Amino acid sequence: MIHIYTGNGKGKTTAALGLIIRALGNGKRVCLIQFMKKNFVYGEIKFLENQPGIDIFQFGTNQLIDPNNPDEIDFKEAELGYKKAEEVLKLNKYDLVVIDEINVAVKWKLLPLEKQLELMDTKTDAEVVMTGRCSHQKVIKKADLVTEMKEVKHYFNNGAQAREGVEF
Amino acid sequence: MIHIYTGNGKGKTTAALGLIIRALGNGKRVCLIQFMKKNFVYGEIKFLENQPGIDIFQFGTNQLIDPNNPDEIDFKEAELGYKKAEEVLKLNKYDLVVIDEINVAVKWKLLPLEKQLELMDTKTDAEVVMTGRCSHQKVIKKADLVTEMKEVKHYFNNGAQAREGVEF
Repeated sequence: MIHIYTGNGKGKTTAALGLIIRALGNGKRVCLIQFMKKNFVYGEIKFLENQPGIDIFQFGTNQLIDPNNPDEIDFKEAELGYKKAEEVLKLNKYDLVVIDEINVAVKWKLLPLEKQLELMDTKTDAEVVMTGRCSHQKVIKKADLVTEMKEVKHYFNNGAQAREGVEF
Repeated sequence: MIHIYTGNGKGKTTAALGLIIRALGNGKRVCLIQFMKKNFVYGEIKFLENQPGIDIFQFGTNQLIDPNNPDEIDFKEAELGYKKAEEVLKLNKYDLVVIDEINVAVKWKLLPLEKQLELMDTKTDAEVVMTGRCSHQKVIKKADLVTEMKEVKHYFNNGAQAREGVEF
């Protein structure tokens, strides 16, 4: 099955992380592929990287991307992320494959929509989870499960800043 | 800050679980309190129960509750869950306190709404996360962050069954 977690609310990547520990707890093999997140020090990566049963691959740089003017390297890294996702799905050795922020990579045109759709068409026994706001309608149409995380209220709107252990 | 993850879509409890591992990865102390989930064999519990830095308390029975006709024990367990949550928040020794499915316990009248609101008013330094569909409007009003997990599409609607490692 293919899950999509999208929308403008908090909880998309964390929902995928929750699925990861649920899967690991049941002895399943997990692969986490992240777009646009390389070298950031995320609590979840510090926690997961030493757990048995999971392989993690990050693509991107440690710089924030300007969606209106991405660097050459951002396109390159997105292509590498796609290649890895394709390889992993075809390898078919994982029970759960999370492709984090791919929706945004496509929205920002770092990756062509067609490549995301190709990944969704890849024959695999894995549960596949794709996250990121602004999921394309064609992706939603093709998916088996779609949850829109809708922001009803967020403390960022009251001036609060991202905090270690909560937002990263 | 108080987060609410509500709505009819998949991803509420898993989003809370993701926050838990993000917090653990940053060396924070975590408490997970679950309503209506005792003795179910959830992958996430199997995974988390042996991790350092987290305490888990479950309340409920291993029977599904009939929302229109709960048993005496269901009310008792909800009251015990509330007491534990109150104690934990007042103790103030955790950085993150997740109170899973409390919204549903209130919706099903196992727990009076006032008690959930009291928990939200408890002075604590912890980040507090409450989950469950059908969050009460007064709870939403009082919270700092609210995400509605909105079901756009779910394979259950095509006859698929809950699967180990994905739904539990």
